[in-house]
Amino acid sequence: MLAALRTHGALSRGELARRVGLSRTTLSEITAQLLQRGAIIVADTDAATRAGSGRPAERLALDPGSGQFLGVDFGHRRVHVAVADASHEVVAQGVERYPDDTPWADRLAIAFALIDRISRETGVHYGALQSVGIGVPGPYTGAGAGGPAVNWKARLAPEGVDTAFTERFDAPVIVDNNTRLAALAEAINRPDAVDNLIYLRLSDGVGGGLVVSGRLVTGSRGFAGELGHVTANPSGAPCRCGKRGCLETIASVPAILRACAATGADIETLDDLAEAVAKGDPAVDAVLREIGSAVGRVLGAAAMTLNPREVVLGGEIVRIAPVLLEQAAATLRYELYSIPSDQPHIVRAAQLTDSDGALGAIAAIFHQSPLLAGYPDPAASAETAPQRRSAQ
Amino acid sequence: MLAALRTHGALSRGELARRVGLSRTTLSEITAQLLQRGAIIVADTDAATRAGSGRPAERLALDPGSGQFLGVDFGHRRVHVAVADASHEVVAQGVERYPDDTPWADRLAIAFALIDRISRETGVHYGALQSVGIGVPGPYTGAGAGGPAVNWKARLAPEGVDTAFTERFDAPVIVDNNTRLAALAEAINRPDAVDNLIYLRLSDGVGGGLVVSGRLVTGSRGFAGELGHVTANPSGAPCRCGKRGCLETIASVPAILRACAATGADIETLDDLAEAVAKGDPAVDAVLREIGSAVGRVLGAAAMTLNPREVVLGGEIVRIAPVLLEQAAATLRYELYSIPSDQPHIVRAAQLTDSDGALGAIAAIFHQSPLLAGYPDPAASAETAPQRRSAQ
Repeated sequence: MLAALRTHGALSRGELARRVGLSRTTLSEITAQLLQRGAIIVADTDAATRAGSGRPAERLALDPGSGQFLGVDFGHRRVHVAVADASHEVVAQGVERYPDDTPWADRLAIAFALIDRISRETGVHYGALQSVGIGVPGPYTGAGAGGPAVNWKARLAPEGVDTAFTERFDAPVIVDNNTRLAALAEAINRPDAVDNLIYLRLSDGVGGGLVVSGRLVTGSRGFAGELGHVTANPSGAPCRCGKRGCLETIASVPAILRACAATGADIETLDDLAEAVAKGDPAVDAVLREIGSAVGRVLGAAAMTLNPREVVLGGEIVRIAPVLLEQAAATLRYELYSIPSDQPHIVRAAQLTDSDGALGAIAAIFHQSPLLAGYPDPAASAETAPQRRSAQ
Repeated sequence: MLAALRTHGALSRGELARRVGLSRTTLSEITAQLLQRGAIIVADTDAATRAGSGRPAERLALDPGSGQFLGVDFGHRRVHVAVADASHEVVAQGVERYPDDTPWADRLAIAFALIDRISRETGVHYGALQSVGIGVPGPYTGAGAGGPAVNWKARLAPEGVDTAFTERFDAPVIVDNNTRLAALAEAINRPDAVDNLIYLRLSDGVGGGLVVSGRLVTGSRGFAGELGHVTANPSGAPCRCGKRGCLETIASVPAILRACAATGADIETLDDLAEAVAKGDPAVDAVLREIGSAVGRVLGAAAMTLNPREVVLGGEIVRIAPVLLEQAAATLRYELYSIPSDQPHIVRAAQLTDSDGALGAIAAIFHQSPLLAGYPDPAASAETAPQRRSAQ
């Protein structure tokens, strides 16, 4: 019904009933609920265009100003907010940056200010929010259950994130690791939803997410998918987690920039790296290949364990330095040689999920929605796909 | 009802109805079906012990001679068969050995002869089989769907195993990798069924199985859990799969025996190894620790990926050389250091599952049974636990 209103604009109850194949009685009950919830509005009547006689019929439309779903993605250095309407379409979004060391209380304040600003600028309001999805960096325990979050060293635990949002919006709140949510968004955002997928994101940190047998995997305590802390080099550099040579010490964006700079190249930022890659600097290329190989080995062990249909590598740096992806793919191919060669293990960057982290949080809400309980039901996938594409 | 008959022996329909809390009508319908299926028999009447007047009541009992579930475990060097009755109790079993290079046609003939011999010796019959579970070595694709099996080099593909059994017994047949089935048996065979578990078995080969979110994981093409072919040493010895330094080249029983013999110790068999371990040979101990460490690293990568509640290490050699388990546990502890220390990751040998592979195949049948559709429902776990214990 919501999709019909989205596609066709304002419709009378009679037109709507015909389009969705429901009786007038059933349809009236549902529209009453949707009107009450603020998801739809009475746009006008058909008096102007009406040919016949009788009382003019009300025409219903989606309320474009009524945010129904709020997705919030806290990165190490920015928060991203997206608002979707009743038909799962993203109707407003925004980003606010902050320094890496910003305390969580401040991050929350920044997020709330951004949410207010979006409302002011776009007219969207939050009075009828159905649910809020929140992605946080680092492992999050008690995922979906509002349990405490745990973080390493210098990283502050985002405890209380859920209650802060629950109090503010009086709506159900789901909090989970943002990379895991991105994995879910990846799996859903396919022509055919993917039942088995490994997702790895190279960013300020290195994180992963798993979809196994059609379900987002949290593990026994919410730590599943922590591929950034699989040991890639047993005698490697100390990691912030306390171990040595974790993949994150090799393949996080800061680690990659440092390793490239150590060749003597003038590289401090991703832009510098892009320039070196464009130039074809052979020393930088060799370093990137070595890093890609480490990524491929860790992905290989995970893929030998899980036999996924797809392995997805995300992060802005993967687009800046495609050789990372190429080398990871080549190494992964070798690591999976034990499995007959007709096993398609594609490695590819996740453009949309990268650039728009809040979509993962929104996907998580939809995933929890009774509407999508049957995920990876193709119907569910079809339902969420449009709003994701529309955000491009 | 079957459990009541198992516990109390023969009971009249009236006694049975009272014990299980069903109406006489409902109970009569069910007993009629069970009688027809051959699961229960009319044992006698209560004429001898009856106090009142009237027609003597029939007393029903489990038919101990009616095999309802057949589990078959094909190893590289032996086939193990177990038969369970209607109450899931193992009522007969047997083992037959064969050389490693025995073709599959011969293995099937040996298994059928063993099944016949068990019938002759124990009086169990297979006329009323409900289903057959079969474990095979190596990865098995299309698990549970009767798809083709794939094996590496010198290993013959057990294609047609399912149809051979279907034709012979006219019952549904489930075929899967035997180590994966052992993982399932491990997960079910707990006071509380384990939702998240990694199982690794060191044997002629090295194989694994995963239970994730309460489900046995097969992966996109049936290769999930192939931990034996995760690279443990990138520059290691060639593996039969075509790669180098797979865990199997280090931690299979033949590889372990070879490495121990290379110290100069007189070790050819597991018995020789047991003697060297008992003696406390320090060179052998050092080799075993190094191997245990490799096992722990591979398990660590898998456990960082999946965050299981339990990691189980199986195989006769783990009991012969406990240091393998100790070192693997120590290494695993380090590899999981990134995860807060309250995460219990226990490594322990799976004695029963090791010695009795056919139980995994039988567990798989029960798992598929409508009775256990709710696995890991505690009721299901309680239902299957007794037969496993009774087999000790």
